[in-house]
Order: sequence, then C-alpha cells, then structure tokens
Amino acid sequence: MHNYISDLKKHIGKKVTLKGWVYNSRSSGKIKFLLLRDGTGLCQCIYFKGECEEKALEDFAKLTQETTVEVTGVVREEPRSPGGVELGAETLNILHITKDFPISPKDHGVDFLMNNRHLWIRSKKQNAILRIRAEIVSAIYDFFNGKGFTLSDAPIFTPNACEGTSTLFETQYFDEKAYLSQSGQLYMEAAAAALGKAYCFGPTFRAEKSKTRRHLIEFWMVEPEVAFANLKDNMELAEQFVEYIVGRVLKNKKEELKTLERDTSTLEKIKAPFPKLHYKEAVEILLKKDTGFKDGNDFGATDETIISSQFDKPVFVHHYPTAIKAFYMKEEEADPTYSLSCDLLATEGYGEIIGGGQREDRLEILEKKIKEHDLNLEHLKWYTDLRRYGAFQSSGFGLGLERTVSWICGLSHVRETIAFPRMYGRMYP
Amino acid sequence: MHNYISDLKKHIGKKVTLKGWVYNSRSSGKIKFLLLRDGTGLCQCIYFKGECEEKALEDFAKLTQETTVEVTGVVREEPRSPGGVELGAETLNILHITKDFPISPKDHGVDFLMNNRHLWIRSKKQNAILRIRAEIVSAIYDFFNGKGFTLSDAPIFTPNACEGTSTLFETQYFDEKAYLSQSGQLYMEAAAAALGKAYCFGPTFRAEKSKTRRHLIEFWMVEPEVAFANLKDNMELAEQFVEYIVGRVLKNKKEELKTLERDTSTLEKIKAPFPKLHYKEAVEILLKKDTGFKDGNDFGATDETIISSQFDKPVFVHHYPTAIKAFYMKEEEADPTYSLSCDLLATEGYGEIIGGGQREDRLEILEKKIKEHDLNLEHLKWYTDLRRYGAFQSSGFGLGLERTVSWICGLSHVRETIAFPRMYGRMYP
Repeated sequence: MHNYISDLKKHIGKKVTLKGWVYNSRSSGKIKFLLLRDGTGLCQCIYFKGECEEKALEDFAKLTQETTVEVTGVVREEPRSPGGVELGAETLNILHITKDFPISPKDHGVDFLMNNRHLWIRSKKQNAILRIRAEIVSAIYDFFNGKGFTLSDAPIFTPNACEGTSTLFETQYFDEKAYLSQSGQLYMEAAAAALGKAYCFGPTFRAEKSKTRRHLIEFWMVEPEVAFANLKDNMELAEQFVEYIVGRVLKNKKEELKTLERDTSTLEKIKAPFPKLHYKEAVEILLKKDTGFKDGNDFGATDETIISSQFDKPVFVHHYPTAIKAFYMKEEEADPTYSLSCDLLATEGYGEIIGGGQREDRLEILEKKIKEHDLNLEHLKWYTDLRRYGAFQSSGFGLGLERTVSWICGLSHVRETIAFPRMYGRMYP
Repeated sequence: MHNYISDLKKHIGKKVTLKGWVYNSRSSGKIKFLLLRDGTGLCQCIYFKGECEEKALEDFAKLTQETTVEVTGVVREEPRSPGGVELGAETLNILHITKDFPISPKDHGVDFLMNNRHLWIRSKKQNAILRIRAEIVSAIYDFFNGKGFTLSDAPIFTPNACEGTSTLFETQYFDEKAYLSQSGQLYMEAAAAALGKAYCFGPTFRAEKSKTRRHLIEFWMVEPEVAFANLKDNMELAEQFVEYIVGRVLKNKKEELKTLERDTSTLEKIKAPFPKLHYKEAVEILLKKDTGFKDGNDFGATDETIISSQFDKPVFVHHYPTAIKAFYMKEEEADPTYSLSCDLLATEGYGEIIGGGQREDRLEILEKKIKEHDLNLEHLKWYTDLRRYGAFQSSGFGLGLERTVSWICGLSHVRETIAFPRMYGRMYP
C-alpha cells in the first residue's frame, strides 16, 4: 500500500510512495515543485536534477491541474511547509492526464461552482469545510455517548405531519401516502421512555421554496430527548453541548479554520452558561429598535440578528407564545399563552441553530392541541399512548447541523456546509 | 437532578433519587420489592417496614406495570443483583398511575407487538437489541475515523437511479421528479477524490414488496470508499471492519448479549482474515449440492446459506459475473464476463451483509455500461467527470446495519433491529 500525506510526519528520513492529484506545479531552473493533493493533505514534492530520475523531469512538463500521479521520494522535515514536511522526490508516474480541469484558481460564478460541486470539493477551502463538518459530527456523537445517551434512529417515512403540512415531501408508500420526516422528536420521546436519554441524528426534509442563505431542502438534525428533564435542564444540556462542539473544532481543526480565515476569537468566547431571555424580554429589545415587530409574532432573520447582536455568546429565548409553537410544546401552567419552549440564537447574526423545549405530558391537553392543529389523532395514537402508559416529564431539542457548520466556519451561505447540497431548484450533482 | 441506575455503582452507601417506571413489584410479608426501570438499567428497590416511610408501604399497593415513580433510598452493594447494587428504599412518590399496560409478560402475537412497538421497546430484550445497535453504530464511526476516513454525508434526493428503477421511491422535487437514495456510493467516489478516504452513513430506501426476515424498506447503510484501493485492499478493509464491530459488541455489551441468550462462541471466531471464494468456486459448492442453481445467476438466500455454512467465519465471494452486478463495477481486464466485485456472507445463515468492489475507472467503458443499463447519461455526467478529471482506481463497499445487528444479536427477523421499522405494509408507529 501507498502512504498518506497526513501520516508523513511519522516517516521522516524514510522513502515513501504517494498517490494523488496535482494541485499545482512550477519549475525554477534545475528545481521543480509539485504540490501534491491526496485528500488527506498537501505535500510539496521537490524534483532536483541529479537527485531524481531523468524521466521524472521529462514527465514533469506534462503535468496539469488534477492529473493523477504516483510519486516516490524521501520525507524531509521542513518547518515552513504546511504539514511540517516535504518530499525529496525521486520518481514520477503519471496515472491519468487531466485536460482542462473546469475549476481554475480564477473566479467562477456560484452557479458554475455548484454545477461542478463534485469537483469543487477538491479545493482547499471546500475541503476544510467538509473536514470541520466531519469533526462536528464526531463531536456530536462523542458528546451524547459520553453522557449516557443511546442513539436511536428515527424513521424517515411517517404517516403524520408534525410541523405543518405545507412543507412536506410526499411519496407513495405502497397503498398509503407517506411523508418524509421533518423531525424525529416524537419518536425520541418514545425512545426516552425506553432508554432514559435517547437521541437521533439523521437527515430531515423541508420543501421550502425559499432561496435564503440559511435553508437547505435536506439537512441533518441531531435531536436529544431526556426523560424527567424540564425546560431549565434542557437549556443547560444545550449550552454544554454547543460549548463542547465549538471547543472540539477549535482544538482539532486549527489548520482548517486558518484556511477559512475564520476569526476564532469570537468562537473562543462560546462558554456556558449562555444568556437566557424570556420571550417578553426579547420582544422589549425589538420594540426599542422600532423595526415594526409585533408582540406575539415569531422572530424573522432580522429580529434574530438584532437580539443576538446584544451578546457575544449564543442567547436562548424561552417561553415563546404557545400559539406560534408546535402542538407538543407544553403550555406554562401559570399562563398557558406561553409555552415551555426555547430556541438558541447563534452569535454573529447566524440565527437559530437550536429549537426545543419541554413536552406536553398531560393527555387531555395534548389531544386537544392535536385537534386544534388539525392533525390526525389516529396516526398519533402511539404518541398519545406515551401519556397513557407511564406519563413522564420530557424535554429535548434539535440542532441543525448545516447552520451550525455555517456558523462555526463563518460562511455566508449554508450551501457550502455539505458535499452535495439539496436546495430549491437544485438536485445536481 | 436525579440519579441514573447505570451510575449507581459510583454512589454505594449514599442516598440517591431515582425516577423511572415499575418493571415489576411484589410483596413478601414485611418486605416489598420494586424492580425499577429508568431506561439506563434495572434496580431492585427494597421497602422494609420500619426502614422506609409508612406512606411508601401504603402506596406500594397501587403500583402497576409501567407506573411512573420517584424513589429515594440508599445504594447498597449486592453482587447477586444485575448491576451489582440494590436500593434500600425510603420513599415512594407516584408520578403517574398506568392502567392496563398493553404488553404483559404473557405471549403476544407479532402484529400486536409491532402495533405497540413504541411500548414494546421498553421490554428487556428489545432494549438490549437497541443498545447493541447503538454500540455497533458507535463502533462504525470509531473504526473509520480511527483509520483516517472523513465522513461525508450523501444526499437522499437524487435524480438518478443507480441500482435499477423498480424498487425506487419517487417524490415531486418542485418541478422535477426525485428518487430516494438506494446508495450513497457514487457520491462517495467524488468524496474519495476530495478526501482520500471517505464514508457516508445514512438511511437508504428500497420499495421491495417482500416480507422476508432480511428486508426493511428503510435501512441504514455505511459506505466507505478509498481512492487508489483495489479489490484485494477492499476485502481486507471489510474484514478488519467486521472483526472490529463484532469485537466491540463482545467487549462492551456482555449483559445485553446474555439477555438475548446469544451464543457468543460463534462470534468469538470472527477474526480476520476471512475465507475468500471466487464466484466459480462458490458455484462449485452449490452444484455439488444439486439445488437447481444455475451458473451465472445471483445467489438466493438458500444459496448463501449453503455457501456460508461451509465456514465458521464470514466468507467473501468475489468476481461475480459482470451481467448480474451494477454498471459501476469494474470488469476484470483479462475476462470481462467477471467483475471486480465482492460480497460478504455472514455466518449462521444470516446471508449477505456487505456488497462492494472496485469501480470502473475507464471513461469509455463506464459510458457504455451506463447506456447498456438504460440509465440517464446526463444525470450521471458528474459521475463520469470523475473519469475525465484525475481518474483513479477506487474501491468501496456498503454494509447494511440492520442485517448486521440481526446477525450479531442472533435474531430471527430484522424487524427488531431498529426502534421503528418500516416494512412492506407497515408505517406505524
């Protein structure tokens, strides 16, 4: 087997074989530089007349961007290089010549890049984002597994609509109609009763005809649910979780953050506890700004930015009006016009990354709400069963992966947070 | 906050509060036993007249299966108990009385249990399966992350059908038709060129109108893809992977395997390397058995059982006929009627758990195969681009999670391997 660039530091002074693609190449008199990309990193390979095969120098002239090559040489320490090493190259074996790679260092339009997303992800910046995404995913699993949660995958096909029917994808499930899941939460409540602390993490779907920088049609969501937890416990779990994720990226993805030119000083401040505002307090902030916001409404992107710009940490808004939240949100017993809900707004104007709250655990009220929301009581019989058989206090939340990646990477659009984004009007590649 | 049963060993001699559900309760003179379930474990709580509140003894009589309770008491070491501890209970606070919990210790029919799956998962056996599933998922991430792979989620909505159109779920994606993914593999080849070693892990969908013990409509699949790997490398990766998963369950889920009465001696033999048969060798085994199998065909469930029963380890069959494999499978250069494909058949008659192989890296042959398979060349333009720009040898495989869970747990049906299975004729709960 060949060696990987990410491992070269372990092989200093040794001869290795690398396989990869030409990221860049240039000649300077007797010395030729090949910047090799193998997906695990970049390595400067130096061909010096007399120290490498003659044929390598001849073939070097044929190299083009993204040509596939095999290179052998000796690993040398080089503190000025990205990985701290370079290769004293000896051979060059061209495996496939690439002609006219579509993505050159010059500027391309967004549409062109998105059409060539399968090639664009090879670029340094896109690569860094994908690596940070993978680190965040890994941090999510480690956080919940480390806290005694049990992963329990939620189904994608559901007969029931849980957050309104207008944004649902529909498919024929043999003789029935099925919808693609918008949330695994209801299922996680059943799982919490079986496992105490449960979570799911999978793709969810919203058929939103919007082209904003915050929306994808397919996005991944992690949804923990804790039996016997209340709204306060829920916010505490969420803030520990977000602190942990950000900390993991800061610790393990320094190079990638540098590639993205991310200002990490703002991320370093993301430490629990986070500020927590009652909906009424958030409304006060907005009313002072005279933006036309009306008390009782949900926040738009601009409202979220105004609220979150008051703080240098993410901020919770809790106790949203019952009328603007989902049917399963528990009403505050003292004042049922407000609900035991909470959203977390990220810093720097990135908006909502978490939504959650405490669940309605009283059967009569839940059934009333299901009817009021015009949902199918029969399809949700199993869900109401959780209040018939061993009813329990339960809280949880959902964190949207792509918005979180966008925030931590400091991106201007969620489309770069996943290898193959699905957006309104785009399903290719 | 309250305490969790799984943590009680850390609190021996201390007073704790538990919240959970009645798994069982019985009285014996002055002593009353409450077997409490909190999702993280079971704990025997012992109420002894004079050592607990009088009210607790009165309320004890009201306890029914799955009634929600809060219990305080002192943790005592008790080697004969499941978790090594028991609780000297002092108080009993009933949070919700459960009447007529549908699932009693008596036998129920499969359909009844599946209709009450949301409650059935609270039972000891189903709980053990879900915990083993979560351990396997965790092992999957740890294995690939530990080997330098980068997770890269594949999209669910695709315009292209990759394994034939008859088993596809279709949905309206705004103005286009979309299919739900049956495999992320094609996308992983693009990801491998960007990341070297990539993998995806998510739900996949097959609209199969079959009610076998091996099929789910929705199932999770992990699909690694390695740039510059060949068929041999691929089988070596797969066998290390399967050994690792089985080893993790044996090491970390002893109690759960005991609950399932799984014969672990057969699992302990699952050590790489695994036997590897050329398709022709596998056919010879079948022809000797005189089962009516025809050379050139794919194996059915019975054929797989016959082949795998010759070995006490999983067995690879490689070099399947090109005609029965997907369009992207590379033809053997010496004899194009065979392909560089491999499937892994599990032991004990559990059948195929892995399918994979080396990919066709020659543009002309790939385009010819796409046409022969009646697939849309335009939809797959991006995929063929991977042969235009930096073509590379690439291999990978997919492992079906539910079949693997079924095998490791020793179950007779895949329906118990996920909390909320989706099968032909079932989408509830």
